[in-house]
Amino acid sequence: MIFFLSDFGTSDVYAGVVEAVVASVAPSARVIHLTHGVPPQDLRHGSFQLFAAAPHLPAGSIVLAVVDPGVGSARRAIIVEGERQTWVAPDNGLLEAALTIDRPRRAFAIVDPRYRLASVSTTFHGRDVFGPAAAHLALGVDPSALGPPIPLDRLVSLGIAPADRSGEVWTFDRYGNAITTIRSPAAPPRSVRAGDRELPYATHYAEVAPGQALALPGSSGLVELSVRDGSARDVLGLAAGLPVSVG
Amino acid sequence: MIFFLSDFGTSDVYAGVVEAVVASVAPSARVIHLTHGVPPQDLRHGSFQLFAAAPHLPAGSIVLAVVDPGVGSARRAIIVEGERQTWVAPDNGLLEAALTIDRPRRAFAIVDPRYRLASVSTTFHGRDVFGPAAAHLALGVDPSALGPPIPLDRLVSLGIAPADRSGEVWTFDRYGNAITTIRSPAAPPRSVRAGDRELPYATHYAEVAPGQALALPGSSGLVELSVRDGSARDVLGLAAGLPVSVG
Amino acid sequence: MIFFLSDFGTSDVYAGVVEAVVASVAPSARVIHLTHGVPPQDLRHGSFQLFAAAPHLPAGSIVLAVVDPGVGSARRAIIVEGERQTWVAPDNGLLEAALTIDRPRRAFAIVDPRYRLASVSTTFHGRDVFGPAAAHLALGVDPSALGPPIPLDRLVSLGIAPADRSGEVWTFDRYGNAITTIRSPAAPPRSVRAGDRELPYATHYAEVAPGQALALPGSSGLVELSVRDGSARDVLGLAAGLPVSVG
Repeated sequence: MIFFLSDFGTSDVYAGVVEAVVASVAPSARVIHLTHGVPPQDLRHGSFQLFAAAPHLPAGSIVLAVVDPGVGSARRAIIVEGERQTWVAPDNGLLEAALTIDRPRRAFAIVDPRYRLASVSTTFHGRDVFGPAAAHLALGVDPSALGPPIPLDRLVSLGIAPADRSGEVWTFDRYGNAITTIRSPAAPPRSVRAGDRELPYATHYAEVAPGQALALPGSSGLVELSVRDGSARDVLGLAAGLPVSVG
Repeated sequence: MIFFLSDFGTSDVYAGVVEAVVASVAPSARVIHLTHGVPPQDLRHGSFQLFAAAPHLPAGSIVLAVVDPGVGSARRAIIVEGERQTWVAPDNGLLEAALTIDRPRRAFAIVDPRYRLASVSTTFHGRDVFGPAAAHLALGVDPSALGPPIPLDRLVSLGIAPADRSGEVWTFDRYGNAITTIRSPAAPPRSVRAGDRELPYATHYAEVAPGQALALPGSSGLVELSVRDGSARDVLGLAAGLPVSVG
Repeated sequence: MIFFLSDFGTSDVYAGVVEAVVASVAPSARVIHLTHGVPPQDLRHGSFQLFAAAPHLPAGSIVLAVVDPGVGSARRAIIVEGERQTWVAPDNGLLEAALTIDRPRRAFAIVDPRYRLASVSTTFHGRDVFGPAAAHLALGVDPSALGPPIPLDRLVSLGIAPADRSGEVWTFDRYGNAITTIRSPAAPPRSVRAGDRELPYATHYAEVAPGQALALPGSSGLVELSVRDGSARDVLGLAAGLPVSVG
């Protein structure tokens, strides 16, 4: 089972072509699309989406993740074998947050041309490199066959990690809710500080009036900043990276 | 076979995570995505989409439908066993129209914690409750195992039902065509009345000039209100709920 | 394996209903969605997407392609058997470019009512005609069973074909890059002429400054016109059909 996430969108044929390539190599591998709606080249957003999905992926599955602003440059293509999943992605920090949930055991560079398309373009490694690699893994090829090992501490970091009291705005969902890097506390805190603003903490939207801002536990285990019936991003003028702390 | 409809959109990972949860419980169940583009919390639109799909679903399949403005409140989660399909949804009227096509036989509340995720969030019951329930049904669990029966006449109603002569604007498609609740008549009527407006009835767009309004039989068996090469919603200022009658 | 492309979008249930119909006829046929984001009735865009996908489709698969501005008129529904794939589509030129890659051997009209839904609407032949035809082919029905043969030189032409030195702007991707009909030359040309404008040819975006226009080899083997970090369509005012030549 291959879970596929990218920033390819669904208005072009890119994601479908990657699935066609996977189906050519591994016809019996099932492909499940996580999302292709990551904003173009938005590693923060992609890394959050993988973090949100990670706890729910079946053991033994493969994750194919392509958000790749460095395509065509010297950035590495990697396979990371975790305790539960095997991850295929560019080495640019996209996997970092998910690997705090699925702890990594080994990593390898993808270099062996036998596991790529015969001709590799400069702009579409999802089709030419990552898709074929994932398909070969689905056939049972060992990750070590695709290239040399990489020490786990040499993987590229985005510097975004879930934390307990103090963090930042990670990204936004399509409603404009801000997802922070702070884990939802077991006991409700008195308040949450975002930039120079103080927000009440609630467990349901219904606890505040329409239009009012609040912080609450999100469905991915992280504190979210919201405005009831509105967009926290727009109403509060929030931006990714804004410091947030739980009081 | 599980048919999955929601208002989750495709820009976030929500629909993919639900499929991951289903695949964890029932790895061999095939999931077919009807649409995740129902406007957020738009029960009218969702109920129409299910109505449009219902006649074409294979017998014996499961329908997982999640448009859930009441998530986190006391609204029930239900399974409705119809003559052909088994439906899993919040009890908020979303299924009502589809159940005029697939006549319901039994309904049950979803309450048994064995068929949910271990931890249930307040905001994402598609992942935590409905998806797992659908997956267990796909494994062959009887609907009655998930909770107590509910009398069919106690299911929540939206009050929207297909009718023969007099009805209302149900919802709109992405081109701005208005879909009414009125079944396309066997013999073409003289005209169709929408609010205080009279529209000619035609069987093809080509029968009127570009920019002109008309009523015509839609592909789901209902009368639609359209403007040739335009949006009936915008040009005619139509709104959901507007009274419509066939003369 | 059925690869499915259309202009149905994903906000309505149309593409899902076609998959439901296919699953009713051929429950074990796998459906892979190439894209449903072709702009409504945009045959140029749809024909490019099929051209881009064609080299990567597994041999023996079926392609179901529905962009159908003439639905309800007298245009034919066709099956084209190529050397590697079997194509199902309206006869309107949609397949033309893809068939320069998968050379056609035989073509047939789809007319036998046994391979359609019992009731055929005037507006949704994807569900009523094309989907069922593709499903029956997946079951092993021979294309010749669905209707009479059509001479290959009688298929409708869009007049768009990949060429070597002189062509036109075919369509645009979602970033506003213009895809031309000109095959990427083996040796970099001195320049590319688009309308009355001269663009430098490069192999990577990084070779020009942000905001600058360039031509470069695209991932589908065709020359593309781009603006680094911008939309060539908007910045350069390009339109589909604009003459382009490689100097």
